[in-house]
Amino acid sequence: MKPLKIAVAGLGTVGAGLVKLLSDNAGIIAARAGRPIVVTAISARDRNRDRGIVIGADVAWYDDAAQMAAKADADVIVEVIGGSEGIARQVVETAIARGLHVVTANKALLAHHGVALAQAAEAKGVALGFEAAVAGGIPIIKALKEGLAGNSLSRVTGILNGTCNYILTTMRETGRDFADVLAEAQALGYAEADPSFDIDGVDAAHKLSILTSLAFATPVDFASMYVEGIRHVSAVDIDFADKLGYRIKLLGIAQATDHGIEQRVHPCMVPVTTPIATVDGVFNAVVAEGDFVGRSIYEGRGAGAGPTASAVAADIIDIARGNRSPVFGVPVGALAAKGIAAMERRQGAYYMRLMVLDRPGVLADVAQALRAEGVSVEQMIQPGRAPGETVPMVMTLHDTVEADMNRAVARIAALDAVVEPPRLIRIEHM
Amino acid sequence: MKPLKIAVAGLGTVGAGLVKLLSDNAGIIAARAGRPIVVTAISARDRNRDRGIVIGADVAWYDDAAQMAAKADADVIVEVIGGSEGIARQVVETAIARGLHVVTANKALLAHHGVALAQAAEAKGVALGFEAAVAGGIPIIKALKEGLAGNSLSRVTGILNGTCNYILTTMRETGRDFADVLAEAQALGYAEADPSFDIDGVDAAHKLSILTSLAFATPVDFASMYVEGIRHVSAVDIDFADKLGYRIKLLGIAQATDHGIEQRVHPCMVPVTTPIATVDGVFNAVVAEGDFVGRSIYEGRGAGAGPTASAVAADIIDIARGNRSPVFGVPVGALAAKGIAAMERRQGAYYMRLMVLDRPGVLADVAQALRAEGVSVEQMIQPGRAPGETVPMVMTLHDTVEADMNRAVARIAALDAVVEPPRLIRIEHM
Repeated sequence: MKPLKIAVAGLGTVGAGLVKLLSDNAGIIAARAGRPIVVTAISARDRNRDRGIVIGADVAWYDDAAQMAAKADADVIVEVIGGSEGIARQVVETAIARGLHVVTANKALLAHHGVALAQAAEAKGVALGFEAAVAGGIPIIKALKEGLAGNSLSRVTGILNGTCNYILTTMRETGRDFADVLAEAQALGYAEADPSFDIDGVDAAHKLSILTSLAFATPVDFASMYVEGIRHVSAVDIDFADKLGYRIKLLGIAQATDHGIEQRVHPCMVPVTTPIATVDGVFNAVVAEGDFVGRSIYEGRGAGAGPTASAVAADIIDIARGNRSPVFGVPVGALAAKGIAAMERRQGAYYMRLMVLDRPGVLADVAQALRAEGVSVEQMIQPGRAPGETVPMVMTLHDTVEADMNRAVARIAALDAVVEPPRLIRIEHM
Repeated sequence: MKPLKIAVAGLGTVGAGLVKLLSDNAGIIAARAGRPIVVTAISARDRNRDRGIVIGADVAWYDDAAQMAAKADADVIVEVIGGSEGIARQVVETAIARGLHVVTANKALLAHHGVALAQAAEAKGVALGFEAAVAGGIPIIKALKEGLAGNSLSRVTGILNGTCNYILTTMRETGRDFADVLAEAQALGYAEADPSFDIDGVDAAHKLSILTSLAFATPVDFASMYVEGIRHVSAVDIDFADKLGYRIKLLGIAQATDHGIEQRVHPCMVPVTTPIATVDGVFNAVVAEGDFVGRSIYEGRGAGAGPTASAVAADIIDIARGNRSPVFGVPVGALAAKGIAAMERRQGAYYMRLMVLDRPGVLADVAQALRAEGVSVEQMIQPGRAPGETVPMVMTLHDTVEADMNRAVARIAALDAVVEPPRLIRIEHM
């Protein structure tokens, strides 16, 4: 059968990994796809840089990716440049307009322009694949669009950012503080020079906005996401979490509630007995809950050349086979906004750490503030005594509504004996 | 668009679950599939039995499933009767011969006749879907055929039988013995009245033979499988496993080695820190390892009406969308036997429990027998002393070849002081 022709825009780690994959596994891929898959064009800045791959003389080279998208002899454009605007967006839009299939690893692009791009792809009858955009080592896009397609989903939860998970894991294992571990992660290449997209939760939020759309057949809605990163997670909180039987993870959570869809990214304490509590280091995990399938759990590497290339290849093979499903699981016309639940309505348990002056009556004052807002204590830890000194006072609170919790915290923060802003971490039982 | 017409052969738990799923989630399924999916025919013995579902008056009822497969007005026949021969096989063969798509949950049928059925389906250009045949709550068939299709796979490992996992989990949690827990599982409906297919490992082996074919593009080869069940796993071994930092799981393992493909089902000790060590109760898990994706892990319910119906529905939705991939991942003509590695060549660590008379010199004799076959001890536990009494002596052995281990065991079994046949459990590091 006729080969499927691939043009690769971007030859960084992922692009080079893809070229290597398509070459190393060409035989088995052709057998699976029913036809050979060949790279016919590549675009990147420097053709001669050593990337550890062989680029055949017959591969057309473009210095300008937009030029390639507009002109290359290809059936599929793979966009692995990144970024929600600029050249990446231009490449994808140009390719779709030309009637080419697109495969991308670009979560930022989809988070910001997913619906418009899906609409354009649908109008042109081309595929827009993005398995690689979320948890490359986990075929979760396919699982949500196809494997679990018989279900009404109620909740999708995930560890979606390997950098954060690596930092939190290392903090726990070594007892070191956030800044220290971040610096090491940067030195090791696990974190970017400018790490804010990762550690402030933006990258996880981009990914979650895609999962939310797939799970609930809603338009991608990144703007309404609640996002809180891991900068304020401290070694002392990780230590208390351990004592209380929890692990701290940065989770993305999308769930259907009576008040609409919740979509939020923030540090969570999860019981150590929960499967994803022990998903450590650069691994990602996703938990999907459906009305018939029950709980279905996925783990794999989140990023890196190999896993991301594997995900891109899966999309390419689907295209080669002629298999297609709607970009976000249902046709764009069937995507329906279901209303976003305000964060103040979040219902659940909380961990609270106060730094208090150790003097009589503090606990009574704190308890009174909680009671005034109807918040009740589940556990309390006050390690050691040091009269007159500042000591931590740690509590877990029974399920309550976030608005009530916030009011209780405001009361507590106003107490004389409370010397630092209270630190809250949401507890997620799953 | 034209509805996709489904005929359901078998209305037990799974069949009834499917009818309920297609009715409960009809709206979202039609949006995802691009067309309505309707049940047009059902076959079961007693139309009037209360199954908790509504069967519309317009659904054609057949007392004879073969008759339905031959005559029903349908695009897809769903076979959820079970069994490798007889009516189930006849239904599937008849449907394919008629040019109808088939979706089945029948692992025994595929283990025994998978290649022939795939060939027939391929010749007729129809789908033969079997997501429900292995770990219903885990879309692992789709993951291997599609999600990981860019990879050369080196190993697939799984907890594939929920009954065994339930029994082993309960034995560990309660300290009770096998027979006792089995009887309870039967009373609870987690084990069949005749439990041998499950507890002797046959069901897991059926499933593994399918996974092996998908992972390595080999013809399904159930006959060459090494199969050992869990009857001989005792409470004392579970207890020692705990002490040594392991959990005992019935695993199915398919892996590529220098001596060919290994496919084996047997109880294993896995380090408690391994993700699947803590997959408990009726949950299943599969770990797939590929050259680019690395390790990818899946967990979900193994059986039951909901998860199995979810898997059947996924196959139906693929058919409705017109999506198709080769039955075993590549066309039947491309399936190539790669040679099966003899079990004697298995290389790995072992747990050994001896019941010995506590008298001087026993350890020296055992150590001598091991040394004679080149097997070296990693750890040894001999709890308590009871001169002249029978006591357990437990060892873990460093990586060795099964043939050498077997010879060492034969020497040890022949020792006077060894009063019971040595008990071996393979250790799998993963």
